[in-house]
Amino acid sequence: MDDDRGLLRGLLPARHARARLPEIAAVLLLAAGCAGPDTPAPGSPDAGPARPAGGGPSARAATPPNIVVILADDLGYGDIGAYGAKRIRTPNIDRLAAAGLRFTQGYASANVCSPSRAGLMTGRYAIRSGLAFKVVDAGSTHGLPEAEETLGELVKREGYRTLYVGKWHLGNFPEHLPLKHGFDEFFGAPASNDMPNFALYDGDVLVEQPVDQSTLTRRYTDRAMRFIAENSDAPFMLFLAHTFPHIPLYASGEFLGKSGAGLYGDTVEELDWSTGQLLAALEEQGISENTLVIFTSDNGPFFEGGTGGLRGGKGTSWDGGYRVPLIASWPGVVAAGRVTGAMAMNIDVLPTIADILGLEAAAATVDGRSLLPVFRGAEESAHDFLYYFNNERVVGVRSQDWKYVTHAYYLGSLGAFEKFDQLPGFAAPYEMLLDADGIDGEAYSYADRFPGILNEHKEALMSARRHFDTLRTRDLETTYPQ
Amino acid sequence: MDDDRGLLRGLLPARHARARLPEIAAVLLLAAGCAGPDTPAPGSPDAGPARPAGGGPSARAATPPNIVVILADDLGYGDIGAYGAKRIRTPNIDRLAAAGLRFTQGYASANVCSPSRAGLMTGRYAIRSGLAFKVVDAGSTHGLPEAEETLGELVKREGYRTLYVGKWHLGNFPEHLPLKHGFDEFFGAPASNDMPNFALYDGDVLVEQPVDQSTLTRRYTDRAMRFIAENSDAPFMLFLAHTFPHIPLYASGEFLGKSGAGLYGDTVEELDWSTGQLLAALEEQGISENTLVIFTSDNGPFFEGGTGGLRGGKGTSWDGGYRVPLIASWPGVVAAGRVTGAMAMNIDVLPTIADILGLEAAAATVDGRSLLPVFRGAEESAHDFLYYFNNERVVGVRSQDWKYVTHAYYLGSLGAFEKFDQLPGFAAPYEMLLDADGIDGEAYSYADRFPGILNEHKEALMSARRHFDTLRTRDLETTYPQ
Repeated sequence: MDDDRGLLRGLLPARHARARLPEIAAVLLLAAGCAGPDTPAPGSPDAGPARPAGGGPSARAATPPNIVVILADDLGYGDIGAYGAKRIRTPNIDRLAAAGLRFTQGYASANVCSPSRAGLMTGRYAIRSGLAFKVVDAGSTHGLPEAEETLGELVKREGYRTLYVGKWHLGNFPEHLPLKHGFDEFFGAPASNDMPNFALYDGDVLVEQPVDQSTLTRRYTDRAMRFIAENSDAPFMLFLAHTFPHIPLYASGEFLGKSGAGLYGDTVEELDWSTGQLLAALEEQGISENTLVIFTSDNGPFFEGGTGGLRGGKGTSWDGGYRVPLIASWPGVVAAGRVTGAMAMNIDVLPTIADILGLEAAAATVDGRSLLPVFRGAEESAHDFLYYFNNERVVGVRSQDWKYVTHAYYLGSLGAFEKFDQLPGFAAPYEMLLDADGIDGEAYSYADRFPGILNEHKEALMSARRHFDTLRTRDLETTYPQ
Repeated sequence: MDDDRGLLRGLLPARHARARLPEIAAVLLLAAGCAGPDTPAPGSPDAGPARPAGGGPSARAATPPNIVVILADDLGYGDIGAYGAKRIRTPNIDRLAAAGLRFTQGYASANVCSPSRAGLMTGRYAIRSGLAFKVVDAGSTHGLPEAEETLGELVKREGYRTLYVGKWHLGNFPEHLPLKHGFDEFFGAPASNDMPNFALYDGDVLVEQPVDQSTLTRRYTDRAMRFIAENSDAPFMLFLAHTFPHIPLYASGEFLGKSGAGLYGDTVEELDWSTGQLLAALEEQGISENTLVIFTSDNGPFFEGGTGGLRGGKGTSWDGGYRVPLIASWPGVVAAGRVTGAMAMNIDVLPTIADILGLEAAAATVDGRSLLPVFRGAEESAHDFLYYFNNERVVGVRSQDWKYVTHAYYLGSLGAFEKFDQLPGFAAPYEMLLDADGIDGEAYSYADRFPGILNEHKEALMSARRHFDTLRTRDLETTYPQ
């Protein structure tokens, strides 16, 4: 192995010098009798009950923080100034990042909308809630199960006031909607804005259909600000899930034509304005210091939107589909201006909040991990592995340094690299071991260079499949070669 | 329009200041009675008989140059040092670029193999030779028609000796192969190396099946060098079409494990070695000065391979599928070390050679344009528009500054942006007018900003379709929305 690396003659970044660390760590873990990659169901290979990681009950904040989650829709990793955007100006989101912690390796838990949101809302990969396959569409009868504990339900245990504003996309029927899942108030749309059932609700009352989308960001923002003004004297959770920049694109008149990135950029600049309004409202109420604000996106960009050089986008198995802006600001706890490369995923939000509140999540298995140690300065991810789901299949796994991926779409097919040994000329499967940071655009596989690391990641993926495949709701999708 | 651009407030590069030039030029062209975008069939909207553009017969070289075309397979825009590759070392190809002209906006004429090669070999978009749909596969009975004049046939008119080494992929049957299309000698493979009929031929004799792929680049190179040594006293054309880095990947022992980009990088470094061998052979024979060497790739990268930040890859409608390295060296004519942004396409090679030789191409309609003026210093492309074919459909058009694209694959479907007005919430089709240089990753559409430019490009595309659709061999492929 060392000889192999020597052959790279310095062309790989020095970071790769610690490429073997996970293997060594795994050995130590097993030697100590800890749960390794083969932890049986129902715990996932990298999961367990959410437990206070910030130091136990003593970590509980004196005054529970307000929690604001801002979720953009189909916003790309490269669409925010703090993440390198050049043609879109996001001074308010950049200010949020400068005041807090910016993750360069932050992930959505799926490459499309509904499963990613299910993961964020429950702290568990969406396959556990039956929402991993495609997205909820206008004809879907399934939605978020009653048994799942959501972010709203978690904080309600501590008496938080809760508002959900914006896009939901976790079910169409009343029993699926925010009012039944831990939110006192709901103002928004159960569906995506390109669906025939797109309509605006206030609570459980349909108030607008068709929706005037051009004023939607403004109206979401107004409702969120009213909630802040009315609830500043006690802990609250505000979940603002923007409809944009999901297509079709609409922006208010004052933002139209203003960005350097066409109408798409205009919608993002309006989201930035909205974020600025919320930050100003928190400041005005004097509650900024003890408010945790999280900003992220549900998946990578669709037809428009910048990936910041990452390969692929929404729906693909490349990092452009999963890696998203992830910013956490909490002035009383999180040091300002920090940037971390520790990998994290939106499933971490629920266990983080549980940790902050000194609670244990209701679910027996939580896939996420508390980010509180990272908030407080740790540079190590709490995850050994993050999993990439494509519908109900685990198609990839990443550690801090490496990504192993087994499938990719090509034209009209989902190809399975692991079956390429069935093709002429292939002596073995086509092994895609990629540099996880994606700065080379996931362009090259290093599988032949690091067979030990390859095997470690294959084992992690196979172990995850052995577990998650038991939770599937349907047969495996078609793959190529068939 | 000027007001619209003012709204961009300097976020777009200054280059865009000349965004309206094509419109003005089009008006002048029409006013002068020249053929505009509606030139009727059989001439394509941007095509005509290849004519000497370098100054007529007087441009004919005193001694016709030797011509070497090196074609890589699935090599990405970003896989060569001169194009920014960091993990693959290509000192010989870089030296070729430093000695000649490097195109930053060079294109394959299709996003997959066979049609791109048909375009390169004939100077015409592949739909004219019936090779635009997918690729020639093991069961295909069609191939390059006898009526097409190839590069080999063109130079044979001037008595050139011609050798074709390497991958052909323009038909499986004897009548389709190089010996019947202008090449005196053939050593190579009719098929791609992932096809069941992959076999090595010397002339019309099958000499190896299965093929030892690990020595293929070396054997192609040896044969090419022997040809140079044996033909240095009279004009020759050497066409070296490498099998790699198409998958499955194989490299000779001395290259295995040597690059910074895995096995893929090893194969590219062996191609670079091969290029160095050829350049050395030309120097040894004292014929470098009057040899035109062209290096390019048949399309963008497949599962591995760097796009240099361009979006997408092989098979897609994004620039990563079409834009490729394109280098031309001809020490007696082309100034060393020049880099041009003038757009060019592999269909330009045939009319360029015709121009050099003072010949008129046999075909009534040639889509390519002579690059000789650019070789001699011109910075303007001879094309008003280049067309992006996806199978038999024109799905995009680019001018020097803008790209308009109508389709993109998403998961298992080919989506048609022009039909998005059928989706809920869309008031109109989804117009994708992209910054043509792709430095923003084709992430943003400027359609709302530049309606005049949008319409100009839509018209060019529709005009092209009116012509090329008459040449289709089958119904339109399925699109989404259906």
